[in-house]
Amino acid sequence: MTEAQGPTRKRVIIVGGGFAGLNAAKALGRAGRRGPGRELEVVLIDRRNHHLFQPLLYQVAMAGLSPADIAAPIRSLLSEYRNTRVIQGEVQAVDADARVVRGDFGELEYDYLVLAAGAMHAYFGNEAWEPHAPGLKTVEQATEIRRRVLTAFEQAETLDPTDGAGRKRLLTFVIVGGGPTGVELAGAIGEMSRTTLAKDFRTIDPKLTRVILIEAGDRILRGFDASLASRATRDLEGLGVQVWTGSRVTQVDADGVNVGEERIEAATVLWAAGVRAADFEDVAGAEQAVFERDRQNRIHVGADLSIEGHPEVFVAGDLARALGEDGQPLPGQAPVAMQQGRYVARMILGDLGGGEGAGREREPFRYVDKGQMATIGRSRAVVEAGKVRFGGLFAWWTWLLVHIYYLTGFRNRVLVLIQWAWSYMTFVRGARLIVSKRWRSYPEANGTGENERKDSAAA
Amino acid sequence: MTEAQGPTRKRVIIVGGGFAGLNAAKALGRAGRRGPGRELEVVLIDRRNHHLFQPLLYQVAMAGLSPADIAAPIRSLLSEYRNTRVIQGEVQAVDADARVVRGDFGELEYDYLVLAAGAMHAYFGNEAWEPHAPGLKTVEQATEIRRRVLTAFEQAETLDPTDGAGRKRLLTFVIVGGGPTGVELAGAIGEMSRTTLAKDFRTIDPKLTRVILIEAGDRILRGFDASLASRATRDLEGLGVQVWTGSRVTQVDADGVNVGEERIEAATVLWAAGVRAADFEDVAGAEQAVFERDRQNRIHVGADLSIEGHPEVFVAGDLARALGEDGQPLPGQAPVAMQQGRYVARMILGDLGGGEGAGREREPFRYVDKGQMATIGRSRAVVEAGKVRFGGLFAWWTWLLVHIYYLTGFRNRVLVLIQWAWSYMTFVRGARLIVSKRWRSYPEANGTGENERKDSAAA
Repeated sequence: MTEAQGPTRKRVIIVGGGFAGLNAAKALGRAGRRGPGRELEVVLIDRRNHHLFQPLLYQVAMAGLSPADIAAPIRSLLSEYRNTRVIQGEVQAVDADARVVRGDFGELEYDYLVLAAGAMHAYFGNEAWEPHAPGLKTVEQATEIRRRVLTAFEQAETLDPTDGAGRKRLLTFVIVGGGPTGVELAGAIGEMSRTTLAKDFRTIDPKLTRVILIEAGDRILRGFDASLASRATRDLEGLGVQVWTGSRVTQVDADGVNVGEERIEAATVLWAAGVRAADFEDVAGAEQAVFERDRQNRIHVGADLSIEGHPEVFVAGDLARALGEDGQPLPGQAPVAMQQGRYVARMILGDLGGGEGAGREREPFRYVDKGQMATIGRSRAVVEAGKVRFGGLFAWWTWLLVHIYYLTGFRNRVLVLIQWAWSYMTFVRGARLIVSKRWRSYPEANGTGENERKDSAAA
Repeated sequence: MTEAQGPTRKRVIIVGGGFAGLNAAKALGRAGRRGPGRELEVVLIDRRNHHLFQPLLYQVAMAGLSPADIAAPIRSLLSEYRNTRVIQGEVQAVDADARVVRGDFGELEYDYLVLAAGAMHAYFGNEAWEPHAPGLKTVEQATEIRRRVLTAFEQAETLDPTDGAGRKRLLTFVIVGGGPTGVELAGAIGEMSRTTLAKDFRTIDPKLTRVILIEAGDRILRGFDASLASRATRDLEGLGVQVWTGSRVTQVDADGVNVGEERIEAATVLWAAGVRAADFEDVAGAEQAVFERDRQNRIHVGADLSIEGHPEVFVAGDLARALGEDGQPLPGQAPVAMQQGRYVARMILGDLGGGEGAGREREPFRYVDKGQMATIGRSRAVVEAGKVRFGGLFAWWTWLLVHIYYLTGFRNRVLVLIQWAWSYMTFVRGARLIVSKRWRSYPEANGTGENERKDSAAA
């Protein structure tokens, strides 16, 4: 890496270009035009080249949007900030005592560190289930889910019509986990089978599709008020989704799932049941780990989002276990991450503000709760903001406008609006592509490399 | 497969949902509403679920468009035709004597067969080069090329700045083959490096990118008039592309290519140098093969596009070696395929017209040449239609309007127009996503499956 720089500039390394990292970088970049930010060199490191608008990722999985509609290169989102640079790379270790970050890009020293590497989906000891039940955290996983869902309908269409059990298995979709993502996936499959796909097949009736949403708790949407959860349950059932609460998945394999004693034969199982914060090696000089993790692997932080003993190391977004005013951990949601990213930038700039800055007591992070929402199909949603709670079509419009507003970058916002307006009017899903993982046309000579399932060969 | 149908309906099987197959199916579907087409059952078989607008595939590879912008599900393109059904499957063998098609979907009898399975890119005995030099025929290959091109810039940015040779290698792009696809790829990389990417990097200057277009013949765009080829060469050179004609690639490996005695170190090599028609097993009762192939594996057809001795078997599109009025094989272009598809449908319907139909002498297929064009970057093109030839900005607008007009489906047309207008005004490329082939987050237990290069891991 380049190390050429003025001796007085302080370097901020931001790990992760999600909502938290991007918002921190933007705030520091803006401050770089004048004031204390000019003393900063900001380096954002992400293993991906793109920022992803996670709340709409399920739309990619459900063939409503293309990946590029909800993703933008981090590099171009930050290109206007001359004090900022972007490295596509993987952070492997953090040495908080030496103030060094290590990864496939080499080694980089920092004055401030913002850890915002996010979370991945988790199987809590059942990682072997992943091949049979993909989660939804990346563009690759979204297109894999899209491929599986669309392929199930295709295979059902060409199946021997006397094979009733086979068809039933292909047209059964199980979604594990009744949080917002699970609800959104289940609603979208239910709706798609009853509208978009209804007229396209000849030997199957997509309306016979079974969609089963499995939740271990006693109700779905645990984070919401109970009245909205029951409203969402009714809306899901209106789309033909069976909601199984109080049900625990005990086995997932290629042919379906076990729920307690019960067996569900299903060709497609999707996982929306848990997350686990990102990992990196913790290089600690002391005996105790510098980064304390909770059960979900989140890092414990203080009121100012820094870790104990290291006021120059902040953790934000899904990676942080930050406590709200009620003493409960803040949820892993985009608004939390965005506010934390901006807060951390403010704290760093405050430290630079003058001689008294660095030692000054920091104001604690306070989450301004703007509410939460989940959508069910193409015309229903539930919205909760403080004491205000509502569902139905109006909630759906609220959901739509909020999400379009927050979509990063003007171009995406307009295009996505047009695409949605169009698909809303016509019941068409624009991105119904089955894309294989294999790009080569010729077999390999040496037998290494891509030997994944050849789901689409020559014809 | 379902075999339930009225005894009098004749079945037409169409293999391939490209321009030829789709146009044949649409014409037969429309005729199914009244007239002789009502006697038909049309079955279209494709290994893909989508029709692809191939002429714009290079735009996906160059991050200008998303795959879904130029692809649409064959099933929904044909859903309005009730005499038509679509099977996603792979045809493995054709038994022209038994009038049977075999594949992973089982066995299907036909009364008429339309073979329109297209072509793939070819290395003519050097298939081992494919991992180092992907071709551009499928969505998967386009996103793989996009990944490689964008990753090369990312890696150059994070390289040790003292490694001049490494950076030069990463910023060298070689395109093999000077046909329209090669010209379009070279022009797009040249332009992208000088405009879109110019401001996004800190340690490299994307304008130093070397783009080398290698052509074995004595000029590029062999199918065009020599004046247009030299115009295109000048336009390419204006975008910084070096055009090496009379140069033959003798070796391709992970680090570059050999051109005769010369060595070019290049991280990215793209292949646009040849095509080979699709394969299937030829189950012939006689000693002689039913399907006669030429050097490019195309099937020889008569003036009515049927094969010798089998007036019920037609071949259309890139799979056919059909002769034009000048005795030369017609080129593998979209307009040829579309006209042939519609022609074949007309011939089949003519046969059904009455008792005398089947034996009647068919009018020969005649290609109405609407001209050809190739684009160079975002404001130059060459157009040739009969004796009319022109280049430059006006040609580019002609190219743009013609391609938008032909893009299948209203939605795509409008969205693509907006996207282009936007990126034309802002120099932004909307689809700059680096997407990995790997979707799993957890390592595999049994060691089989996806062990491809792990180009993006945890961060």
